[in-house]
Amino acid sequence: MLSPEEQLHIIKSGAAQIVPESLLLEKLKKGAPLNIKLGVDPTAPDIHLGHAVPLRKLRQFQDLGHQVTLIIGDGTALIGDPSGRNSTRPQLSREKIAENAKTYVDQAFKVLDPEKTTLRYNSEWILSLGMEELLKILANFTVARILERDDFQKRYTGNLPISLHEFMYPVMQAYDSVMIKADVELGGTDQLFNLLAGRELMEKMGMEPQVCLTLPLLEGTDGVAKMSKSYGNYIGLTDEPADMFGKVMSIPDNMMVKYYRLASTCPVDQIDQIEAGLAADELHPNKVKRALARNIVAAYYSEEDAQAAEESFDQVFKNHEVPDDVPEYAADLTPNDQGKVYLAKLLVDAGLAQSAGEGRRLIDGGGVKINGEAVPAKEYNVDPVKLERAVIQVGKRKFAKLV
Amino acid sequence: MLSPEEQLHIIKSGAAQIVPESLLLEKLKKGAPLNIKLGVDPTAPDIHLGHAVPLRKLRQFQDLGHQVTLIIGDGTALIGDPSGRNSTRPQLSREKIAENAKTYVDQAFKVLDPEKTTLRYNSEWILSLGMEELLKILANFTVARILERDDFQKRYTGNLPISLHEFMYPVMQAYDSVMIKADVELGGTDQLFNLLAGRELMEKMGMEPQVCLTLPLLEGTDGVAKMSKSYGNYIGLTDEPADMFGKVMSIPDNMMVKYYRLASTCPVDQIDQIEAGLAADELHPNKVKRALARNIVAAYYSEEDAQAAEESFDQVFKNHEVPDDVPEYAADLTPNDQGKVYLAKLLVDAGLAQSAGEGRRLIDGGGVKINGEAVPAKEYNVDPVKLERAVIQVGKRKFAKLV
Repeated sequence: MLSPEEQLHIIKSGAAQIVPESLLLEKLKKGAPLNIKLGVDPTAPDIHLGHAVPLRKLRQFQDLGHQVTLIIGDGTALIGDPSGRNSTRPQLSREKIAENAKTYVDQAFKVLDPEKTTLRYNSEWILSLGMEELLKILANFTVARILERDDFQKRYTGNLPISLHEFMYPVMQAYDSVMIKADVELGGTDQLFNLLAGRELMEKMGMEPQVCLTLPLLEGTDGVAKMSKSYGNYIGLTDEPADMFGKVMSIPDNMMVKYYRLASTCPVDQIDQIEAGLAADELHPNKVKRALARNIVAAYYSEEDAQAAEESFDQVFKNHEVPDDVPEYAADLTPNDQGKVYLAKLLVDAGLAQSAGEGRRLIDGGGVKINGEAVPAKEYNVDPVKLERAVIQVGKRKFAKLV
Repeated sequence: MLSPEEQLHIIKSGAAQIVPESLLLEKLKKGAPLNIKLGVDPTAPDIHLGHAVPLRKLRQFQDLGHQVTLIIGDGTALIGDPSGRNSTRPQLSREKIAENAKTYVDQAFKVLDPEKTTLRYNSEWILSLGMEELLKILANFTVARILERDDFQKRYTGNLPISLHEFMYPVMQAYDSVMIKADVELGGTDQLFNLLAGRELMEKMGMEPQVCLTLPLLEGTDGVAKMSKSYGNYIGLTDEPADMFGKVMSIPDNMMVKYYRLASTCPVDQIDQIEAGLAADELHPNKVKRALARNIVAAYYSEEDAQAAEESFDQVFKNHEVPDDVPEYAADLTPNDQGKVYLAKLLVDAGLAQSAGEGRRLIDGGGVKINGEAVPAKEYNVDPVKLERAVIQVGKRKFAKLV
């Protein structure tokens, strides 16, 4: 086992805040495995590298010898938001929640070590919580304290309604920490308030409080907006290896170290060296990015899959003589009523054809390729998924990379 | 049965607000017995005429043919205030609550018609309320709405803590209305917010909302401060007839009509006449007050007891030649370590003796009377209760009325 200080160095890698760091060190010094908590909402089951950031950090804890308690917030999700005001918390049926939870857990175990993970469903204690006990819990919080939460504060001062039951969420999340006796709770930076509520409640209920560890949001492949399915800039945990590899290769260079720290399995001391090497211009960014893409694919598939993905990537981008400086075209991939994109017109917009008519003739003649594959004759309308970040080739020399 | 309009006239007598009056009339027009709700806290079991004001109004409803649901808030009381911040809601044991509730109910039935009263304990639904149901209820209220409550608003703007569980009280009280399907809820003017919360919740849960009927606070015998045990200006429902009679006789004349409306069983049309008669100087205030005192004693005891009380009152104040203009003395009745008041000294303070020594001699000689009864020799220390509003007589001609 590593020394507490060495462990702390690894744990801090990529973390936004540790509140308080001194207590984490103190807990690590005890030498016993710590109980690391992560609470997840089983509302959006498909997870991407952004969602996996805390899972990666949990895995680091596990590799250091600690235990993880993954709390599926089925109690909270089941209740949903009956007012319908908060669209991020749709009311789900028990069946749908169970199904989502299973999908989520299956994906989470691509990252976590099942041997060191305890899975708990908070419906176990939340739904059976009696009014008497609940009121004792509530008595530990003041209205002013809960109103401090950023989103509540904004809504209250902006005269936007806050439903009274919404006040229960941070409290119930805090109660989860009490129930599992968490040593550390992980969450995004936007979760700090809720994590601190857990810390406070534990303290008020006479327990050693948890440490709150927040992790930054991971930007998507565009390197600008946070990774999100709705922004189309995400790398899904179930993406095919080749797709995953290609998507990682498409991130801006300035995102590489952050991806290493938050989304890879690369040891922290190696990341430290990579960061230093890049800063000193001693490492070639392309090589570093390739290694990152390989690492991430290998983490979710295997070394062999990673190698195959790299080869397939090279096949499209190198062997098919795609020049290094392919012009980029920010394509509008909004599908039409049939869910397709009209390729013949897209060729015109991307400067690869003079007219949609020419576009259709080029397609019919087998002269249009998407990522190296010829588009079949008469297939003028294409699935937008095929076009995402695709390289379109017309004839031998005309290229456009959709971005 | 009286017409809806006639009923409304009676119901409005003494009421502070009826929200909305139009709905009450509408409900009365249906012709079916209405369900009138009163929620009570079993924290202070001994009740006085001030507490009985809503009970009197309930009894009026009963006499008009309506049904009453008396809710004992044992669910809320049991939980109490775990934070200890709100001294008005001490945490009570189940046994103490049951005991208080019994004492309360025994007294309440001195006013209410048991045949038309349903007794409910809200622990029945509150303690068994599941989290899922609770959150659905809470979703009907906004934080801003609950913060509008006067005391919450004052504390929030004054940066004084409001415990989160305190937010549950108005909600649970509102839920009581839903559970019993109240048509009308009664409360003091200070309860309007809670009554309106019940109205809102019923409406949001798709029910016909209740009408809120508030009653003013009844001033105590001093006619200034609200009737309260701690101000010593109360008339208890279990006070002896003579004491009750005497206390009513001690209220200021300008309070008579209010007492008639809120504390007597006198029919409303007669009260209307009395009010008009007093205003036109056609009625003698003393006679009106005597009738009031007789009415109140008869309501809690019997006509005979009322008559006996009046006679005893006359015996002290008239037959024993107590002059009409007995000087009043604002006595300090703070008891000493033995729980007594040193009468010998009180005689001096009231101007009835020159010294405590003379006071003791007067007592020993049988020359000192309290309310017409001679104080036994050597009884220099007297129970303060005996001295409240008492007429002290020394010899034949010296009097003082303690106020």
